[in-house]
Amino acid sequence: MATARKVLKLQQPFPMRRGGALPSVEVAYETWGELSASRDNAVMIFTGLSPSAHAASSTDDPSQGWWEDMIGPGRPIDTRRLFVICINSLGSPFGSTSPISINPTTGQPYRLTFPVLTVEDMARAGHEVAVALGIKKLFSVIGPSLGGMTVLAYCALFPGETQTVVSISAAARSVPFSIALRSLQREMIRRDPAWQEGNYTPDAMPVQGMRLARKLGMVTYRSAKEWAQRFGRERASAERKPGDPFGIDFEVESYLESHATKFTGQYDPNCYLYISRAMDLFDLADHGGTVQDALKRFTVERALIIGVETDLLFPIDQQQELANGLAAGGREVQFVRMPSLQGHDSFLVDMDRFRPVVGDFLEQKAKSLPEGL
Amino acid sequence: MATARKVLKLQQPFPMRRGGALPSVEVAYETWGELSASRDNAVMIFTGLSPSAHAASSTDDPSQGWWEDMIGPGRPIDTRRLFVICINSLGSPFGSTSPISINPTTGQPYRLTFPVLTVEDMARAGHEVAVALGIKKLFSVIGPSLGGMTVLAYCALFPGETQTVVSISAAARSVPFSIALRSLQREMIRRDPAWQEGNYTPDAMPVQGMRLARKLGMVTYRSAKEWAQRFGRERASAERKPGDPFGIDFEVESYLESHATKFTGQYDPNCYLYISRAMDLFDLADHGGTVQDALKRFTVERALIIGVETDLLFPIDQQQELANGLAAGGREVQFVRMPSLQGHDSFLVDMDRFRPVVGDFLEQKAKSLPEGL
Repeated sequence: MATARKVLKLQQPFPMRRGGALPSVEVAYETWGELSASRDNAVMIFTGLSPSAHAASSTDDPSQGWWEDMIGPGRPIDTRRLFVICINSLGSPFGSTSPISINPTTGQPYRLTFPVLTVEDMARAGHEVAVALGIKKLFSVIGPSLGGMTVLAYCALFPGETQTVVSISAAARSVPFSIALRSLQREMIRRDPAWQEGNYTPDAMPVQGMRLARKLGMVTYRSAKEWAQRFGRERASAERKPGDPFGIDFEVESYLESHATKFTGQYDPNCYLYISRAMDLFDLADHGGTVQDALKRFTVERALIIGVETDLLFPIDQQQELANGLAAGGREVQFVRMPSLQGHDSFLVDMDRFRPVVGDFLEQKAKSLPEGL
Repeated sequence: MATARKVLKLQQPFPMRRGGALPSVEVAYETWGELSASRDNAVMIFTGLSPSAHAASSTDDPSQGWWEDMIGPGRPIDTRRLFVICINSLGSPFGSTSPISINPTTGQPYRLTFPVLTVEDMARAGHEVAVALGIKKLFSVIGPSLGGMTVLAYCALFPGETQTVVSISAAARSVPFSIALRSLQREMIRRDPAWQEGNYTPDAMPVQGMRLARKLGMVTYRSAKEWAQRFGRERASAERKPGDPFGIDFEVESYLESHATKFTGQYDPNCYLYISRAMDLFDLADHGGTVQDALKRFTVERALIIGVETDLLFPIDQQQELANGLAAGGREVQFVRMPSLQGHDSFLVDMDRFRPVVGDFLEQKAKSLPEGL
């Protein structure tokens, strides 16, 4: 399989925010476009919970990326001008050091001996890539969902190291409703007898727990309105599981079933647990007395904050809070309230709305950069 | 334990709407107040998924009922004037025939041999109680949640047999979002190895599946706004599960944990599966070409439709649909849009808002009934 994956290897120990250290760390990433001689055209993207660093296709890996329509020549994150780096989050199973990595001290996978993971650790791992590439100041850090939290952590940890920030469908900290849902997803995995306290084997994975967790995820990533339009009360095709008194009756159940099947086997359960909990633990107030204090200390020149009105997990009020806090600190803020129907996932789906907003924001400043380098 | 439970025993077979028949049926119910000589002051209450018929305390059973503040002398459903009957839904484990009942044909519990259960079957079981009590026309049928669906079924099945109807936080049919959530709850139970295809034993119940299902229920019964106010980012007391890397961090997780523990052991898993699916299957359009057609055929003199703006499971638009459909049929409709924060559960919690609305509606007509009988 073609890969465009690059890996930064850090040989020194990587101290973790909530205690412990990783003896060595690898950070997987991909890049598009070219870094300018003055190294001032770099955009760093952090991802949501599940994707890899493969945000877009390239010569090295022509397969579609998770944000294909957003990144490329002439696209909103325009690789004719910008050098784009997408980071695979620390703790994710797609190349960066994670619970599936071998602990060099023991020669065994970390599994649950992996230290508590935080969003700040993910931001720091990304920052190491910037350092390694000799980038002193990013043109922008951009992230949706968990990635949006990560860019907030990046701004808090590394003041003066990015000109602009784009936070999409994120939050300064999770509300109890979202914590409850994620806690429940983790419990579904942990209650699967096959989980074995994290010591499952490749031929006996906690598949049922992962399937349930993914289905609950799908429910919370979209919106009731979208599904009402999409599925109505459509019955599932008759051939599905005949004779099962509690099987699939409705098309929406088939939809969840197929998504769960697709996801399971792609994502490591322990990695899921660590990253999911990191989202709960994140609190921008840890970087100042309050969230407002922390936002006031941000030094970015401009910020773009996007929220979606139908988002259940990261309600629009939380985006408003970010925008207000940054404005109170004197930052130039653009707050966009998207009327998309697709809930939290809108940034992956409602591209006609998201593309121009992200493109225009980056364009405003990027125009001063020489085209074609 | 004191009980106020009455049981109607039907000796003839009870045909079920989606096929099959129960050879005999028991319908558990409780009553408050006295039936007038003309038998025109009876109010029948249908319940949500989980409660028993014990809606309020009485001399026979002084323990608090699930709608204690709503029923009694001087309360909104005023037992000085009204004769109140609360029905334990067919399929519920609290006294009515259900999957835990002994099938007289086999001498064994029905378990999964219980026929497919529908909301219409529940309405018909309640109707049998009215018939047995010699009540030709109810003064009102009242129900919240599943009970609200049941009263709609009652009106559709028995035209002319109730003067008024009160439907609270219900729907003409479930939206795909709600179906998805309930489908997931059922899957949680069915995936628990202890479920044993419904053949669990009392000493090895599918406890983990039931706990997960209840927790997801709790998440969907309330609202994100309420929890943000109630829990914020409150950390759980330190003593909980020390050393568990994915245990309880936040107070909201403790809250869910205690509710799940309370529920499990009280409710039979197979009954839960049957009733939950009945809610998905219900569709008022089965009683006419469309939902609108079915509502037009209602013959009630007055209807009270209550919805809650923060309800995730039965969105307020669905209440509006009911009210509009009834109004289109020439019914006198009062539609109340409650701004309660407590989501779907508001009818159990936000009594200060619900009491006067229900009381005033019943009062308007009930005034003509003699006080004190």
